[in-house]
Amino acid sequence: MAEGILIVLSGPSGVGKGTVGKVLAAEKKDIYFSVSMTTRPPRAGEEDGASYFFVGEEEFTRRVEQNGLLEWARVYGHYYGTPKEKVLDCLNRGQDVLLEIDTQGAKMIKSGFPQGVFVFLLPPSLRELKQRIIGRGTEPPQKVQERFAAASLEILEAREYDYLVVNDFAERAAQEILHIVRAEKLKVNRNKNLIEILRGDGYIQCP
Amino acid sequence: MAEGILIVLSGPSGVGKGTVGKVLAAEKKDIYFSVSMTTRPPRAGEEDGASYFFVGEEEFTRRVEQNGLLEWARVYGHYYGTPKEKVLDCLNRGQDVLLEIDTQGAKMIKSGFPQGVFVFLLPPSLRELKQRIIGRGTEPPQKVQERFAAASLEILEAREYDYLVVNDFAERAAQEILHIVRAEKLKVNRNKNLIEILRGDGYIQCP
Repeated sequence: MAEGILIVLSGPSGVGKGTVGKVLAAEKKDIYFSVSMTTRPPRAGEEDGASYFFVGEEEFTRRVEQNGLLEWARVYGHYYGTPKEKVLDCLNRGQDVLLEIDTQGAKMIKSGFPQGVFVFLLPPSLRELKQRIIGRGTEPPQKVQERFAAASLEILEAREYDYLVVNDFAERAAQEILHIVRAEKLKVNRNKNLIEILRGDGYIQCP
Repeated sequence: MAEGILIVLSGPSGVGKGTVGKVLAAEKKDIYFSVSMTTRPPRAGEEDGASYFFVGEEEFTRRVEQNGLLEWARVYGHYYGTPKEKVLDCLNRGQDVLLEIDTQGAKMIKSGFPQGVFVFLLPPSLRELKQRIIGRGTEPPQKVQERFAAASLEILEAREYDYLVVNDFAERAAQEILHIVRAEKLKVNRNKNLIEILRGDGYIQCP
């Protein structure tokens, strides 16, 4: 069985990674939506184990020391990381995995797991991005300006990704990512075994 | 406007490139389905200018000399080639182009136009491929054996392509190729201008 695909969905702060990720997970039920671990306090409505695993700094540090995180980063004073074991288990079993992470985390994943598929979400415009950061209502005005300035710079990192998807509407962006996943599954590098099956006079079973 | 994508659809003799190409062209009306030029005599039902441009060896040689073909090859005693001008015109205007060609031709295109998207069609099994070559009824028994032997070897060339698509049913294979086209349009290398638009405080218009 072919290994699953690790889809790394990233983009600037406020672009809507979380929303697009949720639509994607709802559309493609067989995907494992990786749950990150963080030391930041839960926002209203966030549930432990669903939105994030909320842990203290001590527990987080222990995970890092035990090499139990696929990536981790400090963002705006809090730690975020991706528990490694579950992700690798899913991929080995042939299940696709979706990671929705900030650009620092994506960079770390890329250095350790370059066979992932790296998707960068762009806003339709910087003005729209600013509106979304303000609209989220989770940041005081001064922080909004700081996040927006950082986001404008983060956009330059898009050049290092595999695909760019504009998030004008989360539904459309999620559909685009589904096309990417389908196409990636057809890449020669992931399917050299098919050539061997034919050469061995076998039959290729299509899904 | 972004340049169109050149989709090169190839695979072994008898795999069904023509059928898949036709389904694809019917599904995606805005694609230009490149018509090849050949010196082989028309088969029953083949129309000049639709299936192929049927020309004599003299005319074909003149095209080659004038560098008017994107690729050309001699296959089973006949010449086949792709008229260049129309293909490049379409790509420049942003229109996608589908080339359905044999593996020799695909190899020539790749050396001159590596930014194309190279799709190799595989049969579900070699037995099935042999049945298709026989079923086509265009070859005498001895030629069938010759084509089949060549096709088994051609399959090894699949490793040099970008994508592998199994042609169990033409409809399914065509759908897979449509996913590939959609995903390819999102590749970072084809969209670096989007980053510039945002940096210049512009608005990205989604299709």
